[in-house]
Amino acid sequence: MTQINRQILLASRPQGGVTPDNFKLVETPLAPLADGEVRVRNHYLSLDPYMRGRMNDSKSYAAPQPLDEVMIGGTVGEIVESKHPKFAVGNKVVGMFGWQEYGTSDGKGLQKVDDTHVPLSAYLGAVGMPGVTAWYGLNRIIAPKAGETVVVSAASGAVGSVVGQLAKLAGCRAVGIAGGADKCRYVVDSLGFDACVDYKAGNLYKDLKAVTPDGVDGYFENVGGEVLDAVLARMNAFGRIALCGMIAGYDGEPLPLKYPALLLTQRLLVQGFIVSEHMEVWPEALGQLGMLVAQKKLHYRETIADGLENAPEAFMGLLKGKNFGKQLVKLV
Amino acid sequence: MTQINRQILLASRPQGGVTPDNFKLVETPLAPLADGEVRVRNHYLSLDPYMRGRMNDSKSYAAPQPLDEVMIGGTVGEIVESKHPKFAVGNKVVGMFGWQEYGTSDGKGLQKVDDTHVPLSAYLGAVGMPGVTAWYGLNRIIAPKAGETVVVSAASGAVGSVVGQLAKLAGCRAVGIAGGADKCRYVVDSLGFDACVDYKAGNLYKDLKAVTPDGVDGYFENVGGEVLDAVLARMNAFGRIALCGMIAGYDGEPLPLKYPALLLTQRLLVQGFIVSEHMEVWPEALGQLGMLVAQKKLHYRETIADGLENAPEAFMGLLKGKNFGKQLVKLV
Repeated sequence: MTQINRQILLASRPQGGVTPDNFKLVETPLAPLADGEVRVRNHYLSLDPYMRGRMNDSKSYAAPQPLDEVMIGGTVGEIVESKHPKFAVGNKVVGMFGWQEYGTSDGKGLQKVDDTHVPLSAYLGAVGMPGVTAWYGLNRIIAPKAGETVVVSAASGAVGSVVGQLAKLAGCRAVGIAGGADKCRYVVDSLGFDACVDYKAGNLYKDLKAVTPDGVDGYFENVGGEVLDAVLARMNAFGRIALCGMIAGYDGEPLPLKYPALLLTQRLLVQGFIVSEHMEVWPEALGQLGMLVAQKKLHYRETIADGLENAPEAFMGLLKGKNFGKQLVKLV
Repeated sequence: MTQINRQILLASRPQGGVTPDNFKLVETPLAPLADGEVRVRNHYLSLDPYMRGRMNDSKSYAAPQPLDEVMIGGTVGEIVESKHPKFAVGNKVVGMFGWQEYGTSDGKGLQKVDDTHVPLSAYLGAVGMPGVTAWYGLNRIIAPKAGETVVVSAASGAVGSVVGQLAKLAGCRAVGIAGGADKCRYVVDSLGFDACVDYKAGNLYKDLKAVTPDGVDGYFENVGGEVLDAVLARMNAFGRIALCGMIAGYDGEPLPLKYPALLLTQRLLVQGFIVSEHMEVWPEALGQLGMLVAQKKLHYRETIADGLENAPEAFMGLLKGKNFGKQLVKLV
């Protein structure tokens, strides 16, 4: 009997916000495996803000996601069939199979991982791309000294949660910005940040000022818009801003930066980056992150949607901040 | 007979644009020279955009210019009296005596210069603070490779003219932005830039695009506002922006940055800087700049107002771009 692979394709590009119509679920028969190939049953699909950018047909750091093809995305799963000498049935692997239940590969870009001490799903979060993103921006751009204040937006998220915890481990004051009292409580009580500002409470600048009495030396930006304006106004001279995401402006109108002159008067460094362009740091970063997770010194939280068919809704929720920690879709 | 020193004080802070009322000319008797002091007859006063920032009573990289004190400013002149062992009458010196005809000093911050091969006034321009500013931003922030495209705003000015000429010497394509056809012609014909865009012609982005067919790798920013928006939209991936001035926003309303998301999508580096915080590069930079001027490989132009009493008007003109090249006031 031919096996069926369920896949979600990009059906149309969003006009403003993402809608369910932008996606299409299809069932595709799996072709027999060729020599040199492996087949993976994906256990988890990673949902990440960068995917929103790919849905647009605009100039960006990556080619747009093609229409009528499987949505891009990171996955973890298990080899269920192998005609490749380096992979055996039962191996756990990280890949980029996208929004589908099965992936077929010649092995390129497929990474075997050990889930003895680190849960498989963590390889899509704290010990995966989001974790390395946090590690790179913090260590290679912000490069904080002990005693400095580091602020991160989307602080309860997959990237932000790692930024703040690594900043604490580096001896810094870590301040998060997140949406809602629940997330802020989690950021302080469970992740160990020194403080967290709820941007939905309506007093962002004032509340941020209260918890950054010595100003801000490093800022890890995931959000943009008003959040960036507020933090910029708190930056100390010679501050560093790692620009990782601007999710606030992903739909619709571009959000301006209100006071760019602060970049000059405070002699700030701003560096935009994409972690996939810095593969040279991945082994070191993943080594440290894996160790910290295994030792329970690095905490994370996951929001898990169940079943491929629920991926679009979970993704739309992610863009609105409805997730809490790393957003995953469980496929098995 | 007691000698009189004419001085210009800051009488009030500008509300919006600078007006003549903000300044006050006073005549002050010169006190007899004390042991260890020198007296300098200033020949030229330097007028620079940074002075506008100092006139405000706001948080910035430097303390505000105090009211009722002599306006800050760089000067070159000649020692006319000395009770200091290291300075002799006739020595030419660079100092920071500000807007006045005579300066008295204990020698600190006073630099003897040789005007045999380099005209004295050049020590306030291409072989002075503006030149080192250009050198630092280009070499230490933009760090261009041969073949890359470097753009500089206020290209005919004291800083911009040096940026473009150094970029050409480094094997780059140098593109200027300046106000008016005359300045643009000068930038190309006399300074040797590859192209210059007249921002007053009303088609800034389109005209810039036409002369940057390969995009922009390095941008030296003196202006801000719409000019920054336009260049940002032409930046290549991994571009570098040296943020030196934002003269467009010095009066009144802060000017927003329209598309900050480009910093992320193009993975740009932005670094604000103040050259006086990088004194370690001055000897190397001044050595190179002095040599280039002496060899006539580095060209510059000066606009010279005559007499201290004309400094306010010349300064207001500078802020509106009425000067052509380095704005000086001749005091002798």
